[in-house]
Amino acid sequence: MKKRTHTCGELRSEHAGKTVVLNGWVDRIRDLGGIKFILLRDRYGFTQVVFDPSNEDVYKTALQLGIEYTISVTGIVRERPKDAVNPKMPTGKIEVLATEVEILSESDTPPIYVNIDDDSSEELKLKYRYLNLRKPKMQRNIIFRHKVVQAVRNYLNKNNFLEIETPVLTKSTPEGARDFLVPSRLRPGKFYALPQSPQLFKQLLMVAGFDRYYQIAKCYRDEDFRADRQPEFTQIDLEMSFADSEDVFAIVEGMLSHTFKETLNVGLTTPFPRLTYEEAMEMYGSDRPDRRYGMELHDVSEAFVGTGFRVISEALGRGEIVKGFLAKGLSSKFSRKRLDEYTAFVKENGLGGLIWIKVEDELRSSILKHCPDEIKKVVERFNAKIGDIIFLAIGKRETVSKALGKLREKLISEEKPEVTGFDILWVTDFPMFSYNEEEGRIEAEHHPFTMPNLGDLDKFGKTEPLKVRSHAYDLVINGYELASGSVRIHRRDIQNRIFEMIGLTHEEAQEKFGFLLEAFKYGPPPHAGIAFGLDRLVAIMVGTSSIRDVIAFPKAASGNDPMTGAPSEVSERQLEELRIKIIDEKDGKKR
Amino acid sequence: MKKRTHTCGELRSEHAGKTVVLNGWVDRIRDLGGIKFILLRDRYGFTQVVFDPSNEDVYKTALQLGIEYTISVTGIVRERPKDAVNPKMPTGKIEVLATEVEILSESDTPPIYVNIDDDSSEELKLKYRYLNLRKPKMQRNIIFRHKVVQAVRNYLNKNNFLEIETPVLTKSTPEGARDFLVPSRLRPGKFYALPQSPQLFKQLLMVAGFDRYYQIAKCYRDEDFRADRQPEFTQIDLEMSFADSEDVFAIVEGMLSHTFKETLNVGLTTPFPRLTYEEAMEMYGSDRPDRRYGMELHDVSEAFVGTGFRVISEALGRGEIVKGFLAKGLSSKFSRKRLDEYTAFVKENGLGGLIWIKVEDELRSSILKHCPDEIKKVVERFNAKIGDIIFLAIGKRETVSKALGKLREKLISEEKPEVTGFDILWVTDFPMFSYNEEEGRIEAEHHPFTMPNLGDLDKFGKTEPLKVRSHAYDLVINGYELASGSVRIHRRDIQNRIFEMIGLTHEEAQEKFGFLLEAFKYGPPPHAGIAFGLDRLVAIMVGTSSIRDVIAFPKAASGNDPMTGAPSEVSERQLEELRIKIIDEKDGKKR
Repeated sequence: MKKRTHTCGELRSEHAGKTVVLNGWVDRIRDLGGIKFILLRDRYGFTQVVFDPSNEDVYKTALQLGIEYTISVTGIVRERPKDAVNPKMPTGKIEVLATEVEILSESDTPPIYVNIDDDSSEELKLKYRYLNLRKPKMQRNIIFRHKVVQAVRNYLNKNNFLEIETPVLTKSTPEGARDFLVPSRLRPGKFYALPQSPQLFKQLLMVAGFDRYYQIAKCYRDEDFRADRQPEFTQIDLEMSFADSEDVFAIVEGMLSHTFKETLNVGLTTPFPRLTYEEAMEMYGSDRPDRRYGMELHDVSEAFVGTGFRVISEALGRGEIVKGFLAKGLSSKFSRKRLDEYTAFVKENGLGGLIWIKVEDELRSSILKHCPDEIKKVVERFNAKIGDIIFLAIGKRETVSKALGKLREKLISEEKPEVTGFDILWVTDFPMFSYNEEEGRIEAEHHPFTMPNLGDLDKFGKTEPLKVRSHAYDLVINGYELASGSVRIHRRDIQNRIFEMIGLTHEEAQEKFGFLLEAFKYGPPPHAGIAFGLDRLVAIMVGTSSIRDVIAFPKAASGNDPMTGAPSEVSERQLEELRIKIIDEKDGKKR
Repeated sequence: MKKRTHTCGELRSEHAGKTVVLNGWVDRIRDLGGIKFILLRDRYGFTQVVFDPSNEDVYKTALQLGIEYTISVTGIVRERPKDAVNPKMPTGKIEVLATEVEILSESDTPPIYVNIDDDSSEELKLKYRYLNLRKPKMQRNIIFRHKVVQAVRNYLNKNNFLEIETPVLTKSTPEGARDFLVPSRLRPGKFYALPQSPQLFKQLLMVAGFDRYYQIAKCYRDEDFRADRQPEFTQIDLEMSFADSEDVFAIVEGMLSHTFKETLNVGLTTPFPRLTYEEAMEMYGSDRPDRRYGMELHDVSEAFVGTGFRVISEALGRGEIVKGFLAKGLSSKFSRKRLDEYTAFVKENGLGGLIWIKVEDELRSSILKHCPDEIKKVVERFNAKIGDIIFLAIGKRETVSKALGKLREKLISEEKPEVTGFDILWVTDFPMFSYNEEEGRIEAEHHPFTMPNLGDLDKFGKTEPLKVRSHAYDLVINGYELASGSVRIHRRDIQNRIFEMIGLTHEEAQEKFGFLLEAFKYGPPPHAGIAFGLDRLVAIMVGTSSIRDVIAFPKAASGNDPMTGAPSEVSERQLEELRIKIIDEKDGKKR
């Protein structure tokens, strides 16, 4: 094999006359009047190579070439004739006239297309992932991911963060999802767990005095896979000592600004806007709003004060509210049928029904006849124009906000209004606790090491725990909860109060987190941190909706890998060594 | 908590007069004439803080302080009196007179010392790892590791390598060790395996056209733990397309030179010296010699040509050789007893016995009376001086070399001659195959994707496979096999010949590596790569013999973690979900 002198993305007019060697893949073959034109591809780009029949030896080899063959070509760079210049290709002004060619390896007909977007099944694309990854789009994604990771690291390194590896074979962490387990051969009957996050270890690193830690860390959750979940995913994980949320915000804002600038040349305005959890729920009915779509929720109860429409006046009397949002220009898109469907949707989400107001040549509304004046006031309040539609609902503040928030998201996902750019914001002051309906108990909303708002804890702790806010925060980008973090508890007394409130006995706490509680006996520093979903961040930055597009070897939706066949059966001997046995299938078959 | 204005390693004389805030841990407390002196510690260094009784409030708090309390101190920087300057401390010219102090968290008496080297058991140090990590030495190690990793990355990034993550939940890789298995809940009866290395995936990334890949990758091997093995360890893993071993050598030499310069300010001379496997075995009886100790092996058969000593003349007649090495100045350290012990050692390693020659006022040797003239020739050959000792052995070339190599290592480990610096070399042309005595079959020495020397394969393949050399290479530093790599096979015909030679049927090969073989049907590029043991590299660079000193949270020798208690028991419910069962212990106890 001759060594390449240039990559396939490198040659320009100024190289004309030079003899070069290129190595790459045959992307396309064209025959024009007996001359073979081959588009040669590598990671860096494409170059057109010409095989002229006057050079018999070379031409003979060219005739054997097929799509996706790997070849080494020696040739002379020459400028293309003016009418053959391809302005879309960086190398489009030149071509290489082959003087030698070597077939480095042949290719069977690829089962999926590399050089055009094909509509192969996701399964087939995953099975032949290495071919799918050859596509320029996939190459760009993976290269972009590399750049994002390096930009993040450079920023954190410059800010005195240390990259420290934490264990993968470890003990359960308290993230609440199911652990992947690894049977121990040397300690039969015992298991390691793969970490759901490095949460406890990064806190221990703070106790150990490392001050500022980060890691691009693989995390593992054994969940029932959904379309865009992966059993292993990657976090940008960081933690800081002697720090509070403001310090974390400043670092994250600096890190993202640096990264967006370096990789996309996009400037972000800092500080990022902030909404409290309560404000976000109030304005968007969601703790991860995508504000680019507008459609803020408004409380329009005022318009109905003194209304004669009993359904509403009684509701207001009970302390309920009337709330809604305006969808610009979408009135004509709402047939009776779709309105019924939307009504059914909010009913599923706990509301009694949905009120709509279509602003057309004349006003139309499901309740127009009951309260025409109030409807007019609402239209004024929203400053609605012809073509707009307003959705209203009645109910308890929280229920209405949540249901309308979901309706807003449904509308966005159906209409896909065109928006551009990045909507980035902090959501802060999350509730400390939530109520687990299934198990009928209070649990930590974020995790039990989150610092509560101490004022709230003293005031509401015993009586109304759900009112206690915490120093937990999320970073939301384009409607995704991209990062989540908190100030941590470093005081034992507070930690014990929290355990008590979520009904964790001293013994259970010891069993689960004993080593962290033990560590907290020896001068833990105040600390705070955050973890980013790297896969999602990169997906948002490259503009794809699937994180599979930015992971080199993702799993299919059911957690399997069509390429390697993992997970797969193992030998009896392996199981015996681990001293485990597979339980017979329900159908009674023995293994 | 007041925010620090400076770290504990930062203040100098020029800060005198400034009011500063420091956050850190109480490392030491001294009382001198009623004045409290506290050494405050953080990751960045130490600063002396003075609590004067004249400031009553502050002094009162100072009296409550204990070792390892975390505090925030406000104070005024002042120069120390001349006789109190500590030239060993970067901050030794100043101290901070405390004007405010806040206890951020208290500490129980630490179960292991932080501020002095203690002799706690390894178990206790691992149980309280977060305290052990507070020691300045451990802090330096982990920070140094961070710097090594960043230097490696910077070099590889500049050389167009892409950092790409490969899966952790995957299928068995062919490294030959035992896999850690992860039962799949969604596919009961099936298992993921944790990767022993990203070998197959990095080859697939080459097939995918990424051209240059690297990863700082966790690898997992379920071996019977020895003193300095870890079940999870970290590799610097890289792979290059359109490349051969020379390309890999150049990148690695550049990468290490850059890294040593950046982190230790040590210049390495490139290119690194090379020995073939055969040369290394010949000269040191080892494929990972530490040449700093000298003591090359020499074939001195020539000195015994025509000897009347039958033991030797007969051996030479059988084609055996006499070989040995000289240990400078160690003659007096070898009592009869120790010589007997050394003789027993080489016998265990397949030799008939050990000949020794002590060069003292007169020559002494186990065989002096049998062949005094030959002994003199040997002494001349080695240029031995008074005080030296020479060890000789007789046998087949390979057996003698190996046994003497081991003896040489035993001697080094016992005498620990003082050496400094780094001995770095390539060992190349490893045998392609080795003979697995246990299973009575030929196997791939490196792995079955290693490119054989094609000339050798054609010449010896069928008849003497053990003579076939391969394009495999190791990087050896100070006697450790630090990195291992090879040019890979990218041609199906060669791959099939290799599988055949190691007795892998087509079906078995398909079962094990089917997806890689499938990938190789579609124009794989020629490629080569290498993987470094990062833990060992850092350990060698910081000068510690244990990789546990450079891993934040290592496992104990038996694979358990005394801190978290991993591996641990899990609930019946978890096992049921995974549809596995623990096999009853031998003692008949049921679980």
